[in-house]
Amino acid sequence: MTVPDGCNLLRNIKLKISYDGTNFSGWQRQSLSNGSRTVQNEIERALEKIHKKSIPLIGSGRTDAGVHAVGQVANFHTDILSIPAENFVPALNSILPPDIRILESSEVHSGFHSRFDARERTYRYFIHSLSAIPAHEFPYCWPLFRRLDIHRLNDMASVLSGEMDCSVFAAAGDKSLSRSRFFYGAHFFPEGSKLVFEISANAFLWKMVRSILGTIIDFEKSGKGRDDFLALINSGERHKAGQTAPAKGLFLWNVRY
Amino acid sequence: MTVPDGCNLLRNIKLKISYDGTNFSGWQRQSLSNGSRTVQNEIERALEKIHKKSIPLIGSGRTDAGVHAVGQVANFHTDILSIPAENFVPALNSILPPDIRILESSEVHSGFHSRFDARERTYRYFIHSLSAIPAHEFPYCWPLFRRLDIHRLNDMASVLSGEMDCSVFAAAGDKSLSRSRFFYGAHFFPEGSKLVFEISANAFLWKMVRSILGTIIDFEKSGKGRDDFLALINSGERHKAGQTAPAKGLFLWNVRY
Repeated sequence: MTVPDGCNLLRNIKLKISYDGTNFSGWQRQSLSNGSRTVQNEIERALEKIHKKSIPLIGSGRTDAGVHAVGQVANFHTDILSIPAENFVPALNSILPPDIRILESSEVHSGFHSRFDARERTYRYFIHSLSAIPAHEFPYCWPLFRRLDIHRLNDMASVLSGEMDCSVFAAAGDKSLSRSRFFYGAHFFPEGSKLVFEISANAFLWKMVRSILGTIIDFEKSGKGRDDFLALINSGERHKAGQTAPAKGLFLWNVRY
Repeated sequence: MTVPDGCNLLRNIKLKISYDGTNFSGWQRQSLSNGSRTVQNEIERALEKIHKKSIPLIGSGRTDAGVHAVGQVANFHTDILSIPAENFVPALNSILPPDIRILESSEVHSGFHSRFDARERTYRYFIHSLSAIPAHEFPYCWPLFRRLDIHRLNDMASVLSGEMDCSVFAAAGDKSLSRSRFFYGAHFFPEGSKLVFEISANAFLWKMVRSILGTIIDFEKSGKGRDDFLALINSGERHKAGQTAPAKGLFLWNVRY
């Protein structure tokens, strides 16, 4: 769908997208016949309504079933000239279901590609370690019901820096050509009564953030630390990693270009 | 259900309750045969499971369909001695659906009554005046899509103080014996990208908070101010009040005893 630079027949529109993943089978388009609701399907259906024809949407990457987003990025090519770029926000939001909200839209150069041009993806994971979680926050966090040692957690998180082989965090069925990823950083910080895990990398394997977090949380509980975590990564032995944290605590937070 | 002071046959347990009102037809128990889901029904069903018999739950007051809570209070009498009062939190939460969460439980004197003893109810209403609202906040706010003059809003809110006749904010079908209520205060304040309206009174009429807020918001838009708002209240003429704000922005925040 990319057009050569200088070709002005099509405008290229970049969207910043938020969604509540609770009732979605993830981002990725699926055959409508199987009945699953996906974010890409819903937005492409809204674009089709505006354009009276099928318009493919290019996302920065997939998010899994149940994962939320406040900073997903996607782009599409359009030959509609009458809608100012920023007006795709209200135009799409008026058609989309309330669990998808377009936050920004802007015109970008014709060669811009949401996936190939993305340099850094940032995720945030929200943990509640208290027993008392307000009901309206329950769908967006992992309730752990125990006190966590944030110093020990950050000691393990600090290992995730630079280029690393991430085979140990690959989900069964992962088909990636390379499992090497470049980490910009990972850390835990408190936010009100929540604990937030933020992690940034050039890209992530399927379910990788949830596998990293679940492992760090399991290691903290069993008294393991930084050296054990590093040894695990170097071993590449998937069965030694910890649980996969629940999807509902995870947000795709930002994509940098 | 109240027992005389000094009668120790029954323990009286006070609960602090949070719920996401999105999928409830309000607080108030309804005949189960009509298929509506209510918060009181769900908690009474959980109490019945624990007690193997029907246990009536006394709430501080009703909330309408779609209204949320982080500080609803209710109490029930129990003859179970083996459960420490604070353990009703995990016991009930393990049975309740995730959109109801018990936040606290404690034993109170046998004469305590959640409704009759409540001295002050506080509600908060969340408004988003931006066009860009993250999807996971959309079910808990009123999206207004225009800039509001907070000074003018607070000028009107400051009228709500002391004892006032609230007939102008009574919903059609209101059956209250008296429409006089005592206001402890009302004001607007910013919180991140949201605007919060907080209001406290001894009690509220049905849909009253939403009628007050909807009227203030309408008056702000049409350039009316404090004097117009006061004149409206003194007129008692319901048809001159503004719209009723949507339920989804409203939270029962606290009940004081």
